[in-house]
Amino acid sequence: MKVKMAELSVICPKFEETFSFLGKKWMGLIIDVLLDGPKRFKDLAESIPNVSDRVLVERLKELEERELVDRTVYPETPVRVEYSLTEKGRDLEKAMGEVKTWGEKWL
Amino acid sequence: MKVKMAELSVICPKFEETFSFLGKKWMGLIIDVLLDGPKRFKDLAESIPNVSDRVLVERLKELEERELVDRTVYPETPVRVEYSLTEKGRDLEKAMGEVKTWGEKWL
Repeated sequence: MKVKMAELSVICPKFEETFSFLGKKWMGLIIDVLLDGPKRFKDLAESIPNVSDRVLVERLKELEERELVDRTVYPETPVRVEYSLTEKGRDLEKAMGEVKTWGEKWL
Repeated sequence: MKVKMAELSVICPKFEETFSFLGKKWMGLIIDVLLDGPKRFKDLAESIPNVSDRVLVERLKELEERELVDRTVYPETPVRVEYSLTEKGRDLEKAMGEVKTWGEKWL
């Protein structure tokens, strides 16, 4: 993981930004649930009982803005809306798994 | 990485806490520099030119409080103080490497 210092100072803001974004309350858990596959809002809300709908909506919007999650609307009756991880979102699995492994061992 | 939801809601606060702690400005870079081996304060300050001494002192204190960094005082003349990663700190290398790999690919 030896990266030249110049590179580090370029990468670093992104690195810090990613870490603090993923550290936001519920963010990791939402991504974790979506790693199981696409979910409707109410599935997500049921999977994460303690999160309020308002916060869940906010987090999903942030995840969408960062292209980590896709929101798909199925024009059925009633309309069905599903949230799924993009490739960029799914790619977080390893990093999150490593932080979780570390957390389980040391915290 | 399939962890039962009950487990997740226990792990999660620690997971979030770790992520947001590592997301603090300069934290990742300081750990990165210390992954190369023990450093004196001035070595660290020189390796990370844009961080102020005050913030560097603060971050090192936080890292010490969380037992990620050891501060060793050598009773020489003049006294020599070195900062080094604990095993717990060194164990972060994989997680940080994965987040960095993700950041380089997607950000």
